[in-house]
This record gives sequence, structure tokens and C-alpha cells, in this order.
Amino acid sequence: MIYGHGDDRWRYGHISADFSSNVYYGADNSALLDYLRGHFDDLLHYPEPAPHTLEARLEEAYGLAPGTVCVSGGATEAIYLIAQAFAGSRSAIFQPAFSEYSDACHQHGHFVKHIFAQADLFSGDGIISEAQIPDGTQMCWICNPCNPTGHIYANELVERLIASHPGCIFVMDQSYAAFTRYPLPSPAELAAHPNLLVLHSLTKSHAVPGLRLGWITGSARLLERVRSCRMPWSVNALAVAAGMFFAEEIGSSSQTRGRLSGLDGLLEECRRLRESIASLEGLRVAPTHTHFFLCRTENSTAAELKDYLAREQGVLIRDASNFPGLDEGCFRIATQKPEFNKILLSGLNSFISTNK
Amino acid sequence: MIYGHGDDRWRYGHISADFSSNVYYGADNSALLDYLRGHFDDLLHYPEPAPHTLEARLEEAYGLAPGTVCVSGGATEAIYLIAQAFAGSRSAIFQPAFSEYSDACHQHGHFVKHIFAQADLFSGDGIISEAQIPDGTQMCWICNPCNPTGHIYANELVERLIASHPGCIFVMDQSYAAFTRYPLPSPAELAAHPNLLVLHSLTKSHAVPGLRLGWITGSARLLERVRSCRMPWSVNALAVAAGMFFAEEIGSSSQTRGRLSGLDGLLEECRRLRESIASLEGLRVAPTHTHFFLCRTENSTAAELKDYLAREQGVLIRDASNFPGLDEGCFRIATQKPEFNKILLSGLNSFISTNK
Repeated sequence: MIYGHGDDRWRYGHISADFSSNVYYGADNSALLDYLRGHFDDLLHYPEPAPHTLEARLEEAYGLAPGTVCVSGGATEAIYLIAQAFAGSRSAIFQPAFSEYSDACHQHGHFVKHIFAQADLFSGDGIISEAQIPDGTQMCWICNPCNPTGHIYANELVERLIASHPGCIFVMDQSYAAFTRYPLPSPAELAAHPNLLVLHSLTKSHAVPGLRLGWITGSARLLERVRSCRMPWSVNALAVAAGMFFAEEIGSSSQTRGRLSGLDGLLEECRRLRESIASLEGLRVAPTHTHFFLCRTENSTAAELKDYLAREQGVLIRDASNFPGLDEGCFRIATQKPEFNKILLSGLNSFISTNK
Repeated sequence: MIYGHGDDRWRYGHISADFSSNVYYGADNSALLDYLRGHFDDLLHYPEPAPHTLEARLEEAYGLAPGTVCVSGGATEAIYLIAQAFAGSRSAIFQPAFSEYSDACHQHGHFVKHIFAQADLFSGDGIISEAQIPDGTQMCWICNPCNPTGHIYANELVERLIASHPGCIFVMDQSYAAFTRYPLPSPAELAAHPNLLVLHSLTKSHAVPGLRLGWITGSARLLERVRSCRMPWSVNALAVAAGMFFAEEIGSSSQTRGRLSGLDGLLEECRRLRESIASLEGLRVAPTHTHFFLCRTENSTAAELKDYLAREQGVLIRDASNFPGLDEGCFRIATQKPEFNKILLSGLNSFISTNK
């Protein structure tokens, strides 16, 4: 596990505006939280040793065949279970990406190659349409939309890679699918691929990262192997209850892509924030298709900037220099409420003046 | 994972009295639950990637050195982490015992030997004072108090085994330590052993099995290796909060053995229930040092008895025939409230009449 994930507010004193985590500030989770309060007594009983009932509900809600959903204690457990189920594989990871793919692969004896499909993350339109994977790759990890960049691996590219490498298992992490207007395929649309596993998370869209609930959709044959590695009771009782709530929610909505209802407003606010940061001296801003994006400070390190903002302004950003392929100037910003975005801009301004 | 753990009430319709799980029916967890309700908003934030703060609090509360506590998502995650950290070991498991030791060992490539220290589980005083482990054993698993028998591995025996096999790592699961009057050593008293890991659980004593919180105390050197296998955020935010509550509780109590306050009454009720069952035709009862115990039906299988009690009487028992060394007549009973114990006795009576 790396030291340096986002949302590390416990390192500092008072943080009044947190841009470091991609969890959506405006998530309307009041119905979910009410539901969980009503299920508080579930804590008094064991959940099912393996959450079969919840898996069946999710399959039904998505319109998927039996055996094609595997529930886990957060998307992170899903990542570790997949790495364990296919221990020792030759894995290719499209970088930069969420660090846990690499950590889980190393822990389970994979031979890991990092792939950098983009020459410059700060130019272009943020859509990746060309990429190669090395011959003999047995497992390929794609974060889509990509954390930390907010870039998209184009549907045509993903389809082409999956179809042309039938002997390779593709793991596509769609934890941020709710946060893009790009038409990513739904679980049902992806179900035809026998060599694909797709990761989903409740953490980001419903803003309950403390709960730990994730799930995998994909090939029943592959998931049988993944499920055999899962310990009993790995999903706590409130997380199971939240999954039941979510299954009902997607089951009753007309579309199963699960986009946020307030997505347009969030992305518009993101556009405004990016433009404002780009106008500041010594800061570069990368393209994005979600509500978070990369920036680069040219005249200092991201660590210095982060430290200044946290201590002097109570503002937390994500130092992104520990992602493979990113240098020490890179940081990640997740769009917040307009009044907080103003605080960030004022903090950045003040850092720039101080460093002159 | 075996299919056939206790608390499998979802298999049946209405269950009015549940003897199948060792979770304590009378746990006074109202203060804990109030505390958790007050920490409900913790779900809105990531917990620490690794729960270092909680580990430090538990070390302080127990009077232990830094690095000697490792927190996990339930004692079950602790078992799997230990098996993974020492993958491929030659493991000896004292049987019968909680099935997850064996499952975790097999999952991580251990060479497993089952050890049966007792010739007859139904005779004697339930204290095990003699046992051998095979030469070359690298890891030895002891459930103490033992689930499913309620028997105790005597302190002298455990001390002798640990001292005479310095090259073997001992894993002693004390999840039920709160439920016995036998003077098991506290974490601080066991801290001197460089080859010992001790498992603890909040599930049983505080009756919150849906929460998933456990921890290991023991050698800092061994725990460093265990911790390196733990994925980030494996302990959910409410479980972390519960751990903080528990640390305060043991820190402020005069003894760190954490025995239940109502233990004497519970064990007295257990004694009465055992005597009543032993007086029934065709049923044998084994000795115990906790609130749960083994029984054996001589004229049918435990599966038949369980099915009858669940369907006809709304009473759930634990078919224990899937524990190594136990035959198909064996079942486990966890003592419940007197009025429920009467329902069980009446159900057993009615089964015996029906089967005549």
C-alpha cells in the first residue's frame, strides 16, 4: 500500500475545503443514509458468509445472468481478489492509475509492466484512442474514467484491445462512470466479453467511502475463481444493506449507467474552476472528462504547494507526484462547491505571490 | 469457505430462538450502539488507509509496545492475513476448530495437518493438558477457548508448546476469552513470546457481528509482515469507531481480560441447560468452560434434528458435523435466555417423541 492516498486530512489540523478526494461533495445520499439508519440493527447479526442474495439482486437490477456479479468490501477488495485469483500473471497496467492495481499485483506475484499510452497528459482532448499491450500479457488493468487524470479510454479502443487479445483478462475499473458524459458501456452491454471484469463502487457516487462496498460484473467463469478467494463476511452488514438500496435504485431507473443527476452542473463548475486555475501564473491544467483533473505547478513541487495550502489556508489537495509517469509538480483537484473553489483559487494566488 | 457456518437463519422462515451462533444474546452493547449512532457520519469519509491511530490506542489501552497490535476487518480477516503473510507454511491445526484456519491455510498454500489432542470430546473436564505437534511444524493454530467445544488448552500446555518450538509461529484465537472463568493470559502477559500471535474479536462479547472488527496482538516483527498484506481501508469507518470505543473501555477498566460482566449468570444458566439436555433420552452433552457446548444425538443425525427444530419449532441449532473429528450426530448449542432455553428443551423432547 502506498502512503499518500487522498483524503489524508488526519495529517493536518483544521481542513475547511477538501479537494484531495474524488468523492462527490454534492451527492444526494440522504435517502441512502436514512435507509441505513433504519438498518442499524443489521449490525447485530452476521451478514451472509458470502453475499449471494445481494449479488442476485444486482444481477436482476442490471439485467445480467446469474453468477456475473461478485460483491466485495469496497472496489479495493475487488482489486486484491482479482490479483489473488490470477496470482503470478503477466500484468500490464495503463498508467498513471489508481495505485492499488500495481500494489495488489505485486503482492500476488504478478510480473507488472506499466504502459504509458499518452505522450503528454496536459495536451489533447483527454480521449485515449490508441494504445498497445505487450505480447504475452495475461491481465490488463484499465482505469476508465482514469483516476487521477479524468481521461477516457475510447470505447472503440477498449473493444479492439479486448477482442484482439482473447487470452488476456481485462480489468476495467469504472468506479467513476457516474461522473462522465462520455457514453461508457453499461454492465449489460459489456456482458458478452468472456475475458472482461468491470469494477464498480458505491463510494464515489453516493459519497459513503467509510462504508466499503464495491462489486465486479463480468464473466461468470472468471468470477467463480475470484469468489473462491473471498473470505466469509468480508462485506459488513451495513454495506450489504446499502447494496440492496442501490440495487433497487438502479432497478427502478430507466438507465443503468448510473450517472449523477446533477452531473451537468458539476462538470460546468469543473470547467469554470479549470479555466480559473489555468489563468494563474505558473500553473498548468490538463483536460478531463470528469469532475477531477490534474494540474502542475511549474515553479515549486506539489508537496510544497499542498503543505502551504493545508497549513495556511485549511485547503487540502492531492499531491499526485507518486503516480507513475507524473512528476513532482503534479497535483489533482476534485471540483467542490463554488464557494470552496473560490477559497482554493485564493489560496493558489496567495501561494504564487509568496513564492515570487 | 465452508457452507454451514452458524447463524444461517436466512435458510429458514421465522426463527424465534437462535442457538446456532456463539454471539452473546445478553451483551450490553447499548453504550456502543449509541456511540456508533453518534459516529454515523464517519461513513461519509474514508477511514485511515491503515488504521494506525486505532492500533496505537489499543496498544496504549492494553499496555503494549508500539507495533504489537494489528487491526483487521473481523477476526476472519486476521486469520486470512496471517495465512497469507506466511504462505506455504507447514501448519498444524488443533481440531475440532473454527473452519476458517484450515480454509485460509489451504488458500495460501500451507501444508495442513489436523491434530486431535482429545480421544473423546464428551468425557473429561474440558481442560486439555497434553498435546504434541509434529516435528517441522512452522505454524500452529489453537482456538482457545475452543470453538465448537468450549474446551480450554491449559496455560501450562500452551506455554510449554510455545517455549519448546521457538521456530514455530503460534496463532492462538482468543475470540471467546470474555466467556470463560478460566484464567487465560492477557495480551500483556503473552507479549514476551516472539513467536505468538493472539486473535481478538469484538463480535462475540459486544454482539455486533455485522460490524466486522478484529485485531491481533503479539510480536511486532511478525505483525509487520502481516500488516504488509493488509489492503487499505479493509476496516470500515464504523468498525474503526467501535474500536476506539472499545480501547477506551479496556483502558478504563481495572482488568484487560475483558470478561463479560454477566458471565457468572450466563455460565450458571449454561450449566442448567446442559443438565436438562443430558437428562433427555438419546442425547449426550460434552463438558465446556464457556457458554456454548457440544451435544450428540444418538438416534438420528444432527442435520435431521436441526431441520426438525427449525421447521417445526422455529429453533435454530448449529449442525456441527462438518467440523473435523465430529460425526454426523454432533451439534453445538450456545446458551440463550431461560425462556428460549425452555423452547429448545421442549423442541428436543418433541423430536425425541416423534422419532420413537
